Amino acid sequence: MPSGVVNLAEKFAKVSEFWSPRVVAEMNDYQFKVAKFEGEFIWHDHQETDEVFLVISGSMGIEFREGTVRLSEGEMYVVPRGVEHKPFADSECHVLLIEPRGVVNTGDEGGDLEAENDVWV
Amino acid sequence: MPSGVVNLAEKFAKVSEFWSPRVVAEMNDYQFKVAKFEGEFIWHDHQETDEVFLVISGSMGIEFREGTVRLSEGEMYVVPRGVEHKPFADSECHVLLIEPRGVVNTGDEGGDLEAENDVWV
Repeated sequence: MPSGVVNLAEKFAKVSEFWSPRVVAEMNDYQFKVAKFEGEFIWHDHQETDEVFLVISGSMGIEFREGTVRLSEGEMYVVPRGVEHKPFADSECHVLLIEPRGVVNTGDEGGDLEAENDVWV
Repeated sequence: MPSGVVNLAEKFAKVSEFWSPRVVAEMNDYQFKVAKFEGEFIWHDHQETDEVFLVISGSMGIEFREGTVRLSEGEMYVVPRGVEHKPFADSECHVLLIEPRGVVNTGDEGGDLEAENDVWV
């Protein structure tokens, strides 16, 4: 009997820390990660890959050097590889991230907000 | 100024046909497709890739040879490569599909429900 249904609300309920993506599913060599955002992240980029943000609940923004994008529930955005960006959320926002296995949340920037990678919830 | 916010509800509103995935975004060589399901699809598989179903509204099921999975809004499922499956929905269901560019909805089965591939909305 097949199993493996991923209920996103149940997954978000298990995440307490902001800015700490947790893997919920893999498709080929890509991962789906739930993340709670609140406050400001840091400027960073991912040289090797695009990165998708899909807002499941709440709203958030992404600062780019050229301007800011705002995303509400049911909206998604593809940040192209190599493009500097800084996510932020005025209040708690639940986001599904989709990107290849191995992507670190802070790119090469490191720092206090770097989350342990490849942690499942 | 960055643009490219994808509002899924707006995209679904532009799709009239059932079982005809329409591309809304690309991440590397992967595509995000909106699809409306109602009724029964056909048995098929994808030999080359996993395939993700994420239910945006409504509910649906996926029949496998070993049993049936049911998905509601906010739930996702990864169909592994090469596994025969038959999606169905008792009433209209809005689904986000994620899979590599080039995947045909019916696999190698063809038939009346084969949708033109790589069509954007």
